[in-house]
Amino acid sequence: MAKLGFIGLGNMGGPMAANLVKAGHQVTVFDLSAEALKQLEAHGAVAADNVSDVCAGADFVISMLPASKHVRMIYTGEDGLINYLEKSTLVIDCSTIDAESAQFVGNTLAQAGIAFVDAPVSGGVAGAAAGTLTFIVGGSDADFNKAQTVLNDMGKNIFHAGAVGAGQVAKICNNMLLSILMAGTSEALQMGVDHGLDPKVLSEIMLNSSGRNWTLELYNPCPDVLENVPSSNGYKPGFMVDLMAKDLGLAMQAAQQTNSATPMGALAKNLYNLMQNQGSGSEDFSAIFKLYSQKQ
Amino acid sequence: MAKLGFIGLGNMGGPMAANLVKAGHQVTVFDLSAEALKQLEAHGAVAADNVSDVCAGADFVISMLPASKHVRMIYTGEDGLINYLEKSTLVIDCSTIDAESAQFVGNTLAQAGIAFVDAPVSGGVAGAAAGTLTFIVGGSDADFNKAQTVLNDMGKNIFHAGAVGAGQVAKICNNMLLSILMAGTSEALQMGVDHGLDPKVLSEIMLNSSGRNWTLELYNPCPDVLENVPSSNGYKPGFMVDLMAKDLGLAMQAAQQTNSATPMGALAKNLYNLMQNQGSGSEDFSAIFKLYSQKQ
Amino acid sequence: MAKLGFIGLGNMGGPMAANLVKAGHQVTVFDLSAEALKQLEAHGAVAADNVSDVCAGADFVISMLPASKHVRMIYTGEDGLINYLEKSTLVIDCSTIDAESAQFVGNTLAQAGIAFVDAPVSGGVAGAAAGTLTFIVGGSDADFNKAQTVLNDMGKNIFHAGAVGAGQVAKICNNMLLSILMAGTSEALQMGVDHGLDPKVLSEIMLNSSGRNWTLELYNPCPDVLENVPSSNGYKPGFMVDLMAKDLGLAMQAAQQTNSATPMGALAKNLYNLMQNQGSGSEDFSAIFKLYSQKQ
Amino acid sequence: MAKLGFIGLGNMGGPMAANLVKAGHQVTVFDLSAEALKQLEAHGAVAADNVSDVCAGADFVISMLPASKHVRMIYTGEDGLINYLEKSTLVIDCSTIDAESAQFVGNTLAQAGIAFVDAPVSGGVAGAAAGTLTFIVGGSDADFNKAQTVLNDMGKNIFHAGAVGAGQVAKICNNMLLSILMAGTSEALQMGVDHGLDPKVLSEIMLNSSGRNWTLELYNPCPDVLENVPSSNGYKPGFMVDLMAKDLGLAMQAAQQTNSATPMGALAKNLYNLMQNQGSGSEDFSAIFKLYSQKQ
Repeated sequence: MAKLGFIGLGNMGGPMAANLVKAGHQVTVFDLSAEALKQLEAHGAVAADNVSDVCAGADFVISMLPASKHVRMIYTGEDGLINYLEKSTLVIDCSTIDAESAQFVGNTLAQAGIAFVDAPVSGGVAGAAAGTLTFIVGGSDADFNKAQTVLNDMGKNIFHAGAVGAGQVAKICNNMLLSILMAGTSEALQMGVDHGLDPKVLSEIMLNSSGRNWTLELYNPCPDVLENVPSSNGYKPGFMVDLMAKDLGLAMQAAQQTNSATPMGALAKNLYNLMQNQGSGSEDFSAIFKLYSQKQ
Repeated sequence: MAKLGFIGLGNMGGPMAANLVKAGHQVTVFDLSAEALKQLEAHGAVAADNVSDVCAGADFVISMLPASKHVRMIYTGEDGLINYLEKSTLVIDCSTIDAESAQFVGNTLAQAGIAFVDAPVSGGVAGAAAGTLTFIVGGSDADFNKAQTVLNDMGKNIFHAGAVGAGQVAKICNNMLLSILMAGTSEALQMGVDHGLDPKVLSEIMLNSSGRNWTLELYNPCPDVLENVPSSNGYKPGFMVDLMAKDLGLAMQAAQQTNSATPMGALAKNLYNLMQNQGSGSEDFSAIFKLYSQKQ
Repeated sequence: MAKLGFIGLGNMGGPMAANLVKAGHQVTVFDLSAEALKQLEAHGAVAADNVSDVCAGADFVISMLPASKHVRMIYTGEDGLINYLEKSTLVIDCSTIDAESAQFVGNTLAQAGIAFVDAPVSGGVAGAAAGTLTFIVGGSDADFNKAQTVLNDMGKNIFHAGAVGAGQVAKICNNMLLSILMAGTSEALQMGVDHGLDPKVLSEIMLNSSGRNWTLELYNPCPDVLENVPSSNGYKPGFMVDLMAKDLGLAMQAAQQTNSATPMGALAKNLYNLMQNQGSGSEDFSAIFKLYSQKQ
Repeated sequence: MAKLGFIGLGNMGGPMAANLVKAGHQVTVFDLSAEALKQLEAHGAVAADNVSDVCAGADFVISMLPASKHVRMIYTGEDGLINYLEKSTLVIDCSTIDAESAQFVGNTLAQAGIAFVDAPVSGGVAGAAAGTLTFIVGGSDADFNKAQTVLNDMGKNIFHAGAVGAGQVAKICNNMLLSILMAGTSEALQMGVDHGLDPKVLSEIMLNSSGRNWTLELYNPCPDVLENVPSSNGYKPGFMVDLMAKDLGLAMQAAQQTNSATPMGALAKNLYNLMQNQGSGSEDFSAIFKLYSQKQ
């Protein structure tokens, strides 16, 4: 069993850290919220009152933070972890941030002789609690193999996307495509409904044809086609419109970085911005279906 | 075994009629091309030199024609089949045309007491020859059940989309969604490649994530990710850009008819129009990938 | 002064016919509404109780009808004007319809030896009453010159776009571009406002730069930048969203006819469809600005 | 006459500095290119071999640099001007950069008691040489008034957009709208041409209607409608596709910053990216017209 430091005990980080404790690791945790620290102590973690204690003797330091600026600050900012990390430690950042920031932090740590992988997750709060998250990892083969030993205690599928930053790129490519599938499936279903078709029948037909996709099969945006999906539950999230809009912002940043053309992704992003303008930011992202349905 | 009339012996209709003969039906065929007629005679069909002979005593009359105007003309035009069809005959039109035309022909025949179903296909020339086509049928339950008895001899999957015209609507919804999947998958893959990711690795990751869709799995637009797909064979069709553009035109017509919003489908249509402008009309529709890849 | 027949006495046709009477022409009018007929009689027109009386001895027959199907029916339908028109009469259709229908009616009349021009208008009800409409005419040079003699009594600017149908094409190209200017100006202004700029100052700057356009100068969609425009009057029309959506539908039909790529126009059309979905169909088309403004 | 420091003597900065010398100011210039320095000496400027000499006793320090990173570095980077500028100096940055960077540099200098305005230009190399540039200024009223005294010697129109950063925002809003006007005008004209209309006639009609805009009037993208525009000269720039794509990147960044919806601007950006993919990056931005015209 390994000695771990864990930083960031929010909705995702909390249960992830708890699973690491449950797996038998020795986990030292840090968060600005005393409440969050208490909860993890209850699970058997050691609460640190400063980041240096998190680093001391750690085989791995794992972080789960809200945005790029937090990741840049905590590792490379003034009094950042870079001053305390040991050369034997592997840093695993599970935050979803822009690829450039992941590369910046990774390179800065590398210059100090410290190994780093970016490992953004998908699977949401439920997956974090169940330990069934998907991790998409960017880093060297050696670091990837080493990281797997702990990631396996928090998730089910672990992919190696490429070098440092590639995890963030792969996740953002996937989520941009997801938004396109969701918007496209919504307008195809609504157009059928507008012509008097039964959305269950049309979904069944397209599932058995070339229109098949993840949203149609597992996350149908039309109410009452599938049970136990947000669209059949008043679009309660699930994955919020605001979070999809945030990921699409990261996708547009990534496209900007390489001057890539993404007309479909850019349109999907703006449709999600229009939903936010209408005050639907905290609904599930499948609520884009409502944008297409005509007021009677 | 049934007595059948078959009209339209092109790339699709020819092998479809041949499969009906092979299944043991008595098939009378009609086409403007003497060559096409000779071929079907060789298969054991009876060649008619006028449309009335096709109708005489037929249990089913099946048509496979290029566009709406041909279907309207042959059934309801001057000296059209409506003048020769018997009340016991079920008309099955397998052409891909606009829903309005299918409804017009269906209603006009209904007023003359003749039953009609629209049954557009997918599966292409290969599926027509192999008898593995998918049929999406619009018509009454009784007519659908009756139609299945012969459609089964030409295809594998037979779906009942709803009333007359619903077959065309369902097919066009599916193909509009397909074009969105193809464009979206292309730009997600290219953005990954622009960031140095391996398209095989990125495809594998997205196939196991929420980006999974039919094009990514079976028709990957990025060369050399899959074998035996057009992208790995110089984008030789397969399903031509011109045909996708035609189907997207029908989709926009359908959206117009019900005033449905289809921003993603409209953008995909226009990206395919841009490809046509560049002279790529006869390449496979997965060649939209090239629109995204940057000239070195 | 000429002998005129006028068909279609709605919000536009009524005042147009009245101006022709005022100009001293001898005008015989027809409409299905007895009320509309009475009003024109009050202005000094002769009310006909059938279309044949409208044609008898007319130098010009002018029509102003809601949609393509009415124009096709009244001229070339059963018992249509084609049966009553004299070879010396010039037909002027001022309805806004699809170019194909205008060409169909024009060609059908031509085969009967009757001259036809399409002459769609812009300028709205106010322009119709004031006699300041703009006419965009499609037809031969001779017919255009002849038509001008009466169009001058209803409008101020008369343009010759080309052959029969070209009037409709030119109007629809202009209105498609107008919708793009309106949507683009709205999002540029709102982005500035989101960054704390004063929309009056930003409008002034763009009016003196390369962003200058008709909507920014005369029809600013941001409230209280200009006086006496719909945006400063609760978006009361003006030109309704539903009418812009109808014209954009005609534009998409025209694009379809020639397989023209219109990505920006198609997106603008769909943004207007989204507004209709939200129940804004009867607001002024500049209300698209509200689609961009963020709910507080 | 004032004592000026000028940094950045490229295609734009060179002639701008020369005009300041011509106006009688005492100008000390700095650039990394010895060649550029020699040219300005020939005009009568004093060449500095380090940035501190540029600051010494300067009433104004003006900079014209390629991108945000250069502006951030030269003012606030290690050994940046912030260490040498006097409190009496007004800094005028004429570079086109993202608003966030302009605000960062402005605020950082403000904390050191140094006044700053952002003053991006439009008008191109020709305008720089002729001294007819347009400046869009962000800063306090006092600083704006002071800046005008020297900006007048380089330009003709000087606008005050708002606080620091507002100049960048206003310019980017204008250029985003410009790209929409250009793309929209191109597709409206091409659709008319596809229907057989004469682009000169259609342009004339739309110029007198609600489609009127700057591109249609002064920069028509269809060859041979206007003389002396890039479209009539093989699309030789003019304003390059690559520069429009860069400005649209800044516009998307600005939209991201405020979460503004810009569907039309995002589509225009991606159409320009597609042109770059086809190797048209160094053509004039009106060459987007070619994207719409159909290969024969």
